[in-house]
Amino acid sequence: MNLFEKHKDILDQAVKALHERTFFAAYPEHPSPKIYGETADEEGRNRFQSGLGKKFEELQQADPEAWVGVEESPYTQDALNITYPSFSVNVLVDRAKNAYHTWRKVSPEERAGILIESLEGVKARFFEIAYATMHTTGQGYMMAFQASGPHAADRALEAVAAGYEELNRFPATAHWDKPMGKYNITLDKQWRAVPKGVSLVIGCSTFPTWNSVPGLYASLITGNPAIVKPHPGAVLPIAIVVAEIRKVLLENDLDPNICQLAVDDFDKMITKELAEHQDVKLIDYTGNSAFGSYLEGLAGKAVFTEKTGVNSAILDSVENIDKVAANLAFSLTLYSGQMCTAPQNFYVPEEGIGTPEGKVSFDEFAQKLADNINGLVDNPKAGPFVLGAIQNKKTCDRIGDAADLGGKVWLESRSIENPMFKNARISTPVVIEMDAAQKEKYSTELFGPIALLIKTKNTDQSIALAQEMAMQHGAISCGAYTTDPEVKEKIADEMALAATPVSFNLVGGIYMNQNAGFSDFHVTGGNPAGNASFTNPEYVVKRFTWVGHREPARV
Amino acid sequence: MNLFEKHKDILDQAVKALHERTFFAAYPEHPSPKIYGETADEEGRNRFQSGLGKKFEELQQADPEAWVGVEESPYTQDALNITYPSFSVNVLVDRAKNAYHTWRKVSPEERAGILIESLEGVKARFFEIAYATMHTTGQGYMMAFQASGPHAADRALEAVAAGYEELNRFPATAHWDKPMGKYNITLDKQWRAVPKGVSLVIGCSTFPTWNSVPGLYASLITGNPAIVKPHPGAVLPIAIVVAEIRKVLLENDLDPNICQLAVDDFDKMITKELAEHQDVKLIDYTGNSAFGSYLEGLAGKAVFTEKTGVNSAILDSVENIDKVAANLAFSLTLYSGQMCTAPQNFYVPEEGIGTPEGKVSFDEFAQKLADNINGLVDNPKAGPFVLGAIQNKKTCDRIGDAADLGGKVWLESRSIENPMFKNARISTPVVIEMDAAQKEKYSTELFGPIALLIKTKNTDQSIALAQEMAMQHGAISCGAYTTDPEVKEKIADEMALAATPVSFNLVGGIYMNQNAGFSDFHVTGGNPAGNASFTNPEYVVKRFTWVGHREPARV
Repeated sequence: MNLFEKHKDILDQAVKALHERTFFAAYPEHPSPKIYGETADEEGRNRFQSGLGKKFEELQQADPEAWVGVEESPYTQDALNITYPSFSVNVLVDRAKNAYHTWRKVSPEERAGILIESLEGVKARFFEIAYATMHTTGQGYMMAFQASGPHAADRALEAVAAGYEELNRFPATAHWDKPMGKYNITLDKQWRAVPKGVSLVIGCSTFPTWNSVPGLYASLITGNPAIVKPHPGAVLPIAIVVAEIRKVLLENDLDPNICQLAVDDFDKMITKELAEHQDVKLIDYTGNSAFGSYLEGLAGKAVFTEKTGVNSAILDSVENIDKVAANLAFSLTLYSGQMCTAPQNFYVPEEGIGTPEGKVSFDEFAQKLADNINGLVDNPKAGPFVLGAIQNKKTCDRIGDAADLGGKVWLESRSIENPMFKNARISTPVVIEMDAAQKEKYSTELFGPIALLIKTKNTDQSIALAQEMAMQHGAISCGAYTTDPEVKEKIADEMALAATPVSFNLVGGIYMNQNAGFSDFHVTGGNPAGNASFTNPEYVVKRFTWVGHREPARV
Repeated sequence: MNLFEKHKDILDQAVKALHERTFFAAYPEHPSPKIYGETADEEGRNRFQSGLGKKFEELQQADPEAWVGVEESPYTQDALNITYPSFSVNVLVDRAKNAYHTWRKVSPEERAGILIESLEGVKARFFEIAYATMHTTGQGYMMAFQASGPHAADRALEAVAAGYEELNRFPATAHWDKPMGKYNITLDKQWRAVPKGVSLVIGCSTFPTWNSVPGLYASLITGNPAIVKPHPGAVLPIAIVVAEIRKVLLENDLDPNICQLAVDDFDKMITKELAEHQDVKLIDYTGNSAFGSYLEGLAGKAVFTEKTGVNSAILDSVENIDKVAANLAFSLTLYSGQMCTAPQNFYVPEEGIGTPEGKVSFDEFAQKLADNINGLVDNPKAGPFVLGAIQNKKTCDRIGDAADLGGKVWLESRSIENPMFKNARISTPVVIEMDAAQKEKYSTELFGPIALLIKTKNTDQSIALAQEMAMQHGAISCGAYTTDPEVKEKIADEMALAATPVSFNLVGGIYMNQNAGFSDFHVTGGNPAGNASFTNPEYVVKRFTWVGHREPARV
């Protein structure tokens, strides 16, 4: 059985799910021994630990020019001392260009089979990837497992499904028969989906697989060789994915350089040189806005970005203010606000928030939010695991600076103890009050666990500000609470104009930060937070060109 | 019956045709009295003539700031003296922004009904548009009728169908039900296709409707208001289309400024000011490469271009050299080489072209091509009508300069008499020999009836040069003649890599210049000749943003 036949069922299900957008997951999100095996967790941890301090050899990329690696665990603040093969840009691109002519001739069916097979290989290493993710990004164990493992694999499969569907959107051949009156003109036509060329996937430090595999698999399914350039601080999780892809390519007698890893270190970053290389035709990027905008401006390339944004929560009226405060406290605390979907600006009317029991004042809500954060953070069974650790020291500085923004500090950031990792870099959320007039203070992304409570005249102003922030500075998510259908539709409409998805009235175990493959488009591409979306048709169709040839039909 | 119901059949057929890519035409291409009525031609001519020297009042765009118009007939070389209402950029954009909020709320079904109804209105004026096209572009009568009438309407319908399909690609709502073990999380989700904003459609002087209506209808079906900025030299054909669209909008109580005409003159062009306006989000453009590349570089806009290219004909081996020479002579002579799909560079091996009777030498082929052009041009029943007239005086200068390129002139350009228009601006094709080494001379588009016969070492060099020209300078079409299946696949593959469609072995009444709606993608978007393609999915999906909202499901 070939790999396409082997994985055809899951591919068909994935294509169907793309269009139904109801719940679908190919990879179970729970790290349960029943699903993944009794020893899977321990084996994954052991495999992670046994790799520390060593060369990461399994990529089998020939003739490394050096071995580099600067990863540090946010939990131990020690270097991982793993090194990866490094190569000059020309070597990487030349190898990719050679591989292009192999890979472009592999059929979409075969490509899909190979790519889904690679995800099966990744699945067998979900626990190892989870530990690799914890100790590079600072994510808690559960998030590290889910986001870097099954959720990332689902997003990769989604991109494969979307690409596969588009590649089959038009017929390979058609007979064109035009009546001309006394005779017909007949042509045999054929169409080829020509991959654009070398693809560069630039990773980020907080979600090294989840944010990178959609672009990687989208480029690969559409026939483009890919060079994965991870963030120097978060290499291992995606290195494992690249290794699994290369393994399947080799097993199928294909050039493994169809997918390469390109590791650099902070002293000598190769990202710009790669991005500007004339043979690099596709770029996927997750990271800061300045570099993302520079990439978007490169001529002659299709560039897919997820940059930064200012996410809002609009509070108008609620059924149960305590459940709302609890939900938002969790959203803010989860991975210490280091998710691109975490809320930052909370717009609360100066007259307070409507409830069935009357208005809850601005101050009451602020206190409830602070109390809920404290309750969560100080719960030893939850706090350390929900918070995780801070990936980048600069985020800690930013939290410190936030307190100096000048508004009333409703909750100060502090550290708590993680029972498993005494040396973990931890900062709990800070909550600061702002007046709506202080726009310059809340108009930029303050990455990390920083919440700004912005006092507005009324909900109309809240909506206008949330829309303006999204249009001017980008937004990836928006939370909104209202019990008024007219206000709800106004928020839905105004935020849609700002290309921002809104989660309304979430309480309980679902949060505005969360984003489900096969259902939620991640980033819309319609505001400055990024020009691409996981996974809409644009995300895949820009990676290849339809070219049609024709000739007189043979009679 | 509403307009959607009225036109649903044709819309469904068009969507089906998009995917089958066999022959489909909604608007009959033959200007036959049986199809269009015995008096249609005469009425159209009369209507065109009665408009000369007058204000074009039927747009009903309120409060013109001036009336401008500088069109001249290439057949009479006299001014048409038709004037159009002109407006400042801010007025145009403000009106479009107002109209945006009306049009975006009209359902895709209603939009499709309105747009197809407008095409029915255009259909009733095909003959008038044909005369308007002749006397602005210089096209011959038959081409003017077909290209500006039925073929343009088919391309518009194709864009409507493609947009309509994409707008229905994802469900408006879905119920998301995620099993969590002991309970389920359920969300009601909805998706909105949010139009990008004000659309600017910049026309060209040679195909004022055919090249503009795809972008115009693609923007409109996806909910964007459009401002059509025609070339000052070719306004009337598209002005009639815009008038028909506005008429249907008014009849349906919609803001007619959903579609506006923005006429300027050569002394005070408003194109740049329009394009750079921050509220213009979409730009469609046909024209020269310098301005097209400038537009592509504008940040924060989706830009769709058709620029210039260097089209090749590759001659390797043929069944019948005379039929090939006749076919290529026609391709070159048709509308005096002023089609973006006309061949320019003819690559012929120095050892000649293979035929069943042995090699035909380079010189023999050159002579046959020249003879066939002369035969066509000097046939009084064909020559004047196939050639048409030269739209722009500068093209005549370019033809003169071409003879000075230095190669052997196999055929000199001359004028012939058009029996109906004694003053027509006519230049017959010039045919010049080049050596493959003189690359700088044949590396740019020489717009007009200019053929360069390039002597190559062999077909491999011919292919390499055709590919290089397409990759470096763009190409929209390629003709190739070979009887060798291996050479054919090599050409197909190499030109596919250069994103150039190849017409193989065309003889008889079908030409490499021709391009059929619903079957041939026009321009691929994959080389410097343009970044967009009529009508692939990318052409419509980039005009709107998918935004999803969600909320807990009501139990």
